Amino acid sequence: MTQKILAAHAGLSEVKSGDLIMANLDLVLGNDITAPVAIDVFEGIQAKTVFDKDKVALVPDHFAPNKDIKAAEQSKKLRRFAAQHDITNYFEVGKMGIEHALLPEKGLVIAGDLVIGADSHTCTYGALGAFSTGVGSTDMAVGMATGKAWFKVPAAMRFIITGKLNKYVSGKDVILHIIGLIGVDGALYKSMEFMGEGIANLTIDDRFTIANMAIEAGAKNGIFIVDDQTIDYLKSHSKKRFTVYEMDDDAEYEQTYEIDLATIKPTVAFPSLPENTKTTAEITEPVVIDQVVIGSCTNGRLSDFAKAAKIFDGRQVAKGVRVVIIPATQKIYLQCMELGYFKTFIEAGATISTPTCGPCLGGHMGILAAGERCVSTTNRNFVGRMGHIDSEVYLANPEVAAASAILGRIADPSELSERVKL
Amino acid sequence: MTQKILAAHAGLSEVKSGDLIMANLDLVLGNDITAPVAIDVFEGIQAKTVFDKDKVALVPDHFAPNKDIKAAEQSKKLRRFAAQHDITNYFEVGKMGIEHALLPEKGLVIAGDLVIGADSHTCTYGALGAFSTGVGSTDMAVGMATGKAWFKVPAAMRFIITGKLNKYVSGKDVILHIIGLIGVDGALYKSMEFMGEGIANLTIDDRFTIANMAIEAGAKNGIFIVDDQTIDYLKSHSKKRFTVYEMDDDAEYEQTYEIDLATIKPTVAFPSLPENTKTTAEITEPVVIDQVVIGSCTNGRLSDFAKAAKIFDGRQVAKGVRVVIIPATQKIYLQCMELGYFKTFIEAGATISTPTCGPCLGGHMGILAAGERCVSTTNRNFVGRMGHIDSEVYLANPEVAAASAILGRIADPSELSERVKL
Repeated sequence: MTQKILAAHAGLSEVKSGDLIMANLDLVLGNDITAPVAIDVFEGIQAKTVFDKDKVALVPDHFAPNKDIKAAEQSKKLRRFAAQHDITNYFEVGKMGIEHALLPEKGLVIAGDLVIGADSHTCTYGALGAFSTGVGSTDMAVGMATGKAWFKVPAAMRFIITGKLNKYVSGKDVILHIIGLIGVDGALYKSMEFMGEGIANLTIDDRFTIANMAIEAGAKNGIFIVDDQTIDYLKSHSKKRFTVYEMDDDAEYEQTYEIDLATIKPTVAFPSLPENTKTTAEITEPVVIDQVVIGSCTNGRLSDFAKAAKIFDGRQVAKGVRVVIIPATQKIYLQCMELGYFKTFIEAGATISTPTCGPCLGGHMGILAAGERCVSTTNRNFVGRMGHIDSEVYLANPEVAAASAILGRIADPSELSERVKL
Repeated sequence: MTQKILAAHAGLSEVKSGDLIMANLDLVLGNDITAPVAIDVFEGIQAKTVFDKDKVALVPDHFAPNKDIKAAEQSKKLRRFAAQHDITNYFEVGKMGIEHALLPEKGLVIAGDLVIGADSHTCTYGALGAFSTGVGSTDMAVGMATGKAWFKVPAAMRFIITGKLNKYVSGKDVILHIIGLIGVDGALYKSMEFMGEGIANLTIDDRFTIANMAIEAGAKNGIFIVDDQTIDYLKSHSKKRFTVYEMDDDAEYEQTYEIDLATIKPTVAFPSLPENTKTTAEITEPVVIDQVVIGSCTNGRLSDFAKAAKIFDGRQVAKGVRVVIIPATQKIYLQCMELGYFKTFIEAGATISTPTCGPCLGGHMGILAAGERCVSTTNRNFVGRMGHIDSEVYLANPEVAAASAILGRIADPSELSERVKL
């Protein structure tokens, strides 16, 4: 499927793994960390203007609202460039959201698209049947100038999904399970292609979460077949015509994995790699925590907060734990508010942040001190990712994160009996 | 009135301006910037325990949720100390708010109290007829250890308030007007005492704003007579017995000012001192802006957001302007949400921050780049206060701030005609 999209965008009838191709881009994305570097390159190569002002997206989501003077100067450069080139899809603070949640929500990515973004989690859009991948700021700069980028065509891995998820298990557990299985370099420079009758049992949000973390297995991209759910999503978010590329049964796959969703359990990635997974049942020693973060491009969508709200409802955050809730976009923020989730969170003792990548990358809004531990719905738990090099991040789904907040240690939501409820 | 409170807390029948006294403290306050320093001093002098675990308040409001590792380490020290000494009034992220809004809300400060806080805007509680003042971290440390502090009794200045405020004018304009009149050292080490029949026309929130900025005129404290509104406020927030000290007509005042509220106009303090005031009518050249901040210990209360929401309702933030709304406490946050103010703000294009001092002191959540201008409801517009030394802060009330956000330049709310409404 990836190879078909790449071929079509390169004007070729077919490409093979390892081919070097030049392809046309449907969208070029940058944020307040990467775009300023790309802008310098863009201006350094004396590019006059962007190839298409509707096909560049600039989102100041990492350190905005500006955490410090440096962040302010970076955002200023983004804003100045957006004004100068009349960029349609520049999103100011207040209209902003985390890029990988915002772009699909705004209908800017559709099935069959070829998208590059100067951010490693650009692979998220594979959930919608697009090829999308993270690039460096130089590629972003040249992409903005020419509308093209070069690619080495990746080999493909097949994940045949069957079955149905159990309670308290979601897309996050699926991808953590897979990364635990194949390792953080298990899909190195490959395309992770998700197919099978079980896909119908994964919501689009589950798929976003799974595709989002394809990079954590080293993949060039992650991509899902397009089904009725995808088409419904696309039609309700975008007016653009999309193209559906099929996954052929006779396509060449370097590996094939069969994943039965019914066998997956709530899974936590221990420090300091996403592959260090344990199911909650396998955690024998109590892991006492200091902070819980629910949000990010991985798990900051409405369904994530709906699930967390159910866990928090009528319960209290454990003493000594601070909980930071970060809706990924302004729209999600509004929806959470109107559905009463925020009231539930605040009454439980959590705090709500404005949309931002925030602590995920050690940016702001919940940085850890030495020795502190955080259960987080984000995507990376590398050493020092959320603060001090002696702090620890445990990756989990929103329900596990919420249950852990209430019990003050990593916990399975099923541990919360009625008696814990107030 | 100040002298009466000081005398009572020093066990003396009377004190005079200039006396050095040792007085008993009803509350000692610190935050995540000042308390860690105080804790070092406290432990340095080998104090065993705090004088009263119910009379120390610790609020990590300045850089929390932690903006960086340093902030995280500071908060950690606060948290460790609070646990070690079983401090009743330690407020964790999620239960937190800006200290000077939080303490009155929690009923921790009442009329007749003597309060010190290692934060210059501790003078806020004068609105409730308490003597409260900012101290250094060393005084805070000794205060925590002994329950006592030394004071040089301030001389008093009298502000006789008459009349009633006009539309779009509030406590912020009153105090900016006064600072414009007397200058930033106009009340140096004096007590600003507010009395007169016009006080009844100032809400408690107006009074908080006025007392909050007494320090911006150099005052040791600001204090209001206690009237029925005060008593209502105290009774609905605290169960503690309060003491009302009168302002005697024959008391010795070094200066007397008469302020007719009806004559005060919407007032803006231009960079870089709160005394550089102009009424909106006096602003002849357009002052184009980049950011608007509505929040802080000065103007982050429910009534402030109610006023701002009326201005934003059905209107849009000007292109190129970012608006950061910062409710001062979790309670105010919840109320703003339930009253629909947040919906109005978000639909207008503003972003909502979790409670924090944030950008006011250049902390986080909206720091300015070089050349940027912000209209802010905060209390200080010193050089570099909100970011780069070449940025500018204009202090205003919430309605002026909101109107400025919509028009993209400093504006009077009356400029918003119906045609601007969507």
